Amino acid sequence: MPEYVYGHWSVIETLRAGRRRFEQLLIAEKAEDRGVMAEITTLAEQRGIPIRRVPRGIIDDLANGANHQSTVLRVGDYPYCETDAMFELARQRGEKPFILLLDLLKDPQNVGVLLRVADAVGIHGVIMQDRRGVSVTPSVVNASSGAVEHLNVAQVTNLVTTMKDLKKQDVWMVGLDIGANIPPMDKTNLDMSIGLVLGSEGEGMRRLVRDTCDLLLQLPMRGRVASLNVATVGSVALYAAWQARSWQGWVHP
Amino acid sequence: MPEYVYGHWSVIETLRAGRRRFEQLLIAEKAEDRGVMAEITTLAEQRGIPIRRVPRGIIDDLANGANHQSTVLRVGDYPYCETDAMFELARQRGEKPFILLLDLLKDPQNVGVLLRVADAVGIHGVIMQDRRGVSVTPSVVNASSGAVEHLNVAQVTNLVTTMKDLKKQDVWMVGLDIGANIPPMDKTNLDMSIGLVLGSEGEGMRRLVRDTCDLLLQLPMRGRVASLNVATVGSVALYAAWQARSWQGWVHP
Repeated sequence: MPEYVYGHWSVIETLRAGRRRFEQLLIAEKAEDRGVMAEITTLAEQRGIPIRRVPRGIIDDLANGANHQSTVLRVGDYPYCETDAMFELARQRGEKPFILLLDLLKDPQNVGVLLRVADAVGIHGVIMQDRRGVSVTPSVVNASSGAVEHLNVAQVTNLVTTMKDLKKQDVWMVGLDIGANIPPMDKTNLDMSIGLVLGSEGEGMRRLVRDTCDLLLQLPMRGRVASLNVATVGSVALYAAWQARSWQGWVHP
Repeated sequence: MPEYVYGHWSVIETLRAGRRRFEQLLIAEKAEDRGVMAEITTLAEQRGIPIRRVPRGIIDDLANGANHQSTVLRVGDYPYCETDAMFELARQRGEKPFILLLDLLKDPQNVGVLLRVADAVGIHGVIMQDRRGVSVTPSVVNASSGAVEHLNVAQVTNLVTTMKDLKKQDVWMVGLDIGANIPPMDKTNLDMSIGLVLGSEGEGMRRLVRDTCDLLLQLPMRGRVASLNVATVGSVALYAAWQARSWQGWVHP
């Protein structure tokens, strides 16, 4: 079924990544063809994608009322990969595997933010359980500013089974959690083959997922408000893991 | 002028902090009085605040169409403080000053997330320039999950003047920026009296603000998408600064 990716950065990165089937670019009739929009139409022309001007109301409908910035791109399904592709990318780069696992996150905004940060730290792949959790919908693409179009994302039917498989391949499963006896984040050297596991909003990791982790870490908190958003916790943890790898792959601008 | 703080956590934390003038708690007629809502009405009763049941449409209007979760609290102005209060808090806790400065951030959501993280790392205060930037509106309160109600926030007419004043009091101004010759975040020991400066979305710090910083740091990025959200950058930097202070003040749960 075709999807409608919306918003400037989602559309641009989807076009740049070039991993989906492209069907049509739709632009609101009165939108001016300059700046970012000119960049979008140029990219679409280079790829031979039909461009259609339509009344704004049609774009509103196709984007389900989201902030579409006057454009939607009609595309084929998101190209999920297998976990093998993550190991292959790590091997190509000569790096230890660095993977993010999401246990049934519910909020597309949180997942989008995490995918954007995952891209920024050079993750080799992201694994999500299918059904019940968020999948890579157009709103996730948008919340990631299109970053997910460049990432390896796998959907698996059973996250625990996948964690066990990764462990057999010497990837350490490191879960973010809160509680007594869980050391703070900086007490472990994160420069190893790592799968960082984040639990869902409010509930955290499911018990079996937690029990399958090799170790647990927590992000200290001292304020008056009880908890932080999972996107914040995950962002800080992803950066801590990349810092432990001495910003491997970073090109100082 | 009265303001209408909306949403469960905003209302609860505003009541708990007890720093505003309380006028009235409004609850949608059909909202059930249990769970979080029961906690809200109990807190309001303890403080002698009139509670009124009104049609949902009135709450929709007062919350400007935001997701109010069936309740708004009519309150007096947000209680801004002076920078003195921040030094006083640091002194009371026996800690080196730890301050966040926001240079004309535009998005209430970003500011709210940053305030929530600032609270989680035990910041002594947050400084924003008034006019042109975001102030502590009900939507900022909501995006901070109410955390801002417990924080010292100062509004100043000229951020650069305030930065110079802070420098005279031996607080180092550390700006987050991107560019050549700017070292990555971990190359400086952040365990000092620090004012962390964040620039606005898209544009970064204004030139005079940047020039007033004692040092600049950057958060490395390696992905395909060019930049990270200021809320993400700030969250990672705030945690790095608190980690440099050995999670001072953290009570292991």
